[in-house]
Amino acid sequence: MSTAPPSVLISEVAPRDGLQSVARTMPTAAKLAWIDALHGAGLREIEVGSFVPARRLPQMADVAEVVRHASRLPELTVMALVPNLRGAEAALAAGVHKLTVPVSASAAHSLANVRKTPEQMVDEVRAIVALCKERSPGVMVEAGISTAFGCTLQGPVPEDDVLRLAEALLRAGVDEAGLSDTTGMANPAQVRRLFLRLRAAIGEHAGAAHLHNTRGLGLANCLAAYDVGVRTFDASQGGIGGCPYAPGASGNVVTEDLVLMFEAMGVDTGVDLERLTAARAALVQGLPGEALYGMTPEAGLPKGFTYADGRLPAREALLPTTERLA
Amino acid sequence: MSTAPPSVLISEVAPRDGLQSVARTMPTAAKLAWIDALHGAGLREIEVGSFVPARRLPQMADVAEVVRHASRLPELTVMALVPNLRGAEAALAAGVHKLTVPVSASAAHSLANVRKTPEQMVDEVRAIVALCKERSPGVMVEAGISTAFGCTLQGPVPEDDVLRLAEALLRAGVDEAGLSDTTGMANPAQVRRLFLRLRAAIGEHAGAAHLHNTRGLGLANCLAAYDVGVRTFDASQGGIGGCPYAPGASGNVVTEDLVLMFEAMGVDTGVDLERLTAARAALVQGLPGEALYGMTPEAGLPKGFTYADGRLPAREALLPTTERLA
Repeated sequence: MSTAPPSVLISEVAPRDGLQSVARTMPTAAKLAWIDALHGAGLREIEVGSFVPARRLPQMADVAEVVRHASRLPELTVMALVPNLRGAEAALAAGVHKLTVPVSASAAHSLANVRKTPEQMVDEVRAIVALCKERSPGVMVEAGISTAFGCTLQGPVPEDDVLRLAEALLRAGVDEAGLSDTTGMANPAQVRRLFLRLRAAIGEHAGAAHLHNTRGLGLANCLAAYDVGVRTFDASQGGIGGCPYAPGASGNVVTEDLVLMFEAMGVDTGVDLERLTAARAALVQGLPGEALYGMTPEAGLPKGFTYADGRLPAREALLPTTERLA
Repeated sequence: MSTAPPSVLISEVAPRDGLQSVARTMPTAAKLAWIDALHGAGLREIEVGSFVPARRLPQMADVAEVVRHASRLPELTVMALVPNLRGAEAALAAGVHKLTVPVSASAAHSLANVRKTPEQMVDEVRAIVALCKERSPGVMVEAGISTAFGCTLQGPVPEDDVLRLAEALLRAGVDEAGLSDTTGMANPAQVRRLFLRLRAAIGEHAGAAHLHNTRGLGLANCLAAYDVGVRTFDASQGGIGGCPYAPGASGNVVTEDLVLMFEAMGVDTGVDLERLTAARAALVQGLPGEALYGMTPEAGLPKGFTYADGRLPAREALLPTTERLA
């Protein structure tokens, strides 16, 4: 059994991306129990909420309390989304370790979403970085470039626009710029091309892949990103959140299935799949009846499964035998 | 618009693999209408049924009639599964163009499934090849090596066993040997490794990838196979068939999502996604109420989607606009 650090970092976004997509509000105590369970499964970066006006997203009204709780968990990077400087101030006051700021590569999406152009958002990011340096120098700032692979408003988004935006964000002082397939339009060839170009443009500041499963391509796109060197992947327990246009089509990549893919490939995630699956109970407890996605939790671990670090599952999930032709 | 042949061949297996997994029997007229619709969508290889005793699989009792109908469709390779020499005799009499014989790499699975060892199945394949040469020299014989990536009975299947079996099948005279992830246990690293070894062992006789989506890795595994040179992919409309252990977990890779992935990547499939989606109506007509899978049919084509050969969709499926953060 290896004691080396995990080969990929799974950044769990469900407490933010998932919960803000659900109309109901998960009670604070349930959020805390769920985050504890996710952390207990070995996740080491969790996006626990967003700092937005409570009248706009009442599901996030308790975000400061959630951050304070999560920041007491050992070896956990506590992330929060902030759309603007005001959100960043509140997030820093609450004690986050890392901020993520969504900046859309599509002007149409940016205006519809935050009523600012991408250029105005770069200015906002610059102000956020300055605030962090002044108040909390250790806090990291990530920009998540949304609609990087296409936009439901403008259609295709030129790759040059994405790269120019990434370079502008780097000049504005972010630690990392990642790429988000906000509307589930990415394909593996495009993912490889764009992340290669991102790496060429901003080097080690190239950040996470935030990929969606809207058309079923989520894991294939994650594989494509891994192939070209991406090592941080956003994913959501039960696939909640994202843009679930279709019944059965989760928006976000499902953490459980993503962890299975990497571990089965021999790529260490540091996550215990059985504990992660058990953490679904805490999610269900906080949001009874909410539809969860993910095939591995239903099918169980393959017979003979071994974790990338050599660990064996505590109790092997056996599958029914097959008596079929082919 | 290119007139070059498609870059990959999608082999549609739903009329065999799907219908034999469903307890109900689709009426013959509905089968014929559905196969016509699949052909009309541009599919050029369809596995239309299996030649097995009607008492064992009553769903396939009309397979000879289905083959006769399908063999009149232009530019279509009509495939059927045969488990033994007797099935091959009936298939050749009906006029199939290509036979596929499942041969399990796992002795436990082989014995449970067809009451023969893999070695005995190689002998059966040798007899089938001899019969074809005698009666219908133009008919191709494919062996589908099942449980190639793992077995629910024996667990991991040694890669050397799979390669030895492929070589024995080639000596027995098959035109192609493909690999099947019968129980949904494959991962992308394994898919790449095993198809590379298969190609090294039997060269251009390396056949189709038959991959399942049991744990959500179906498309990622197809991408992995494509990366190492596989150009024929089995898939099933609506994901019916395969080994659907879990609700929401289709067994087979969904043809609609696979076609979207390749076309979006610029890899020509020759398939029209809108007509393919429309063909689902014929499937539903024949099996009312049957659960269908696939995310692309629900989400629609991405805004600005273009086929690999440059065609534009007849009517673009627009998506709802998004007003969300990230």
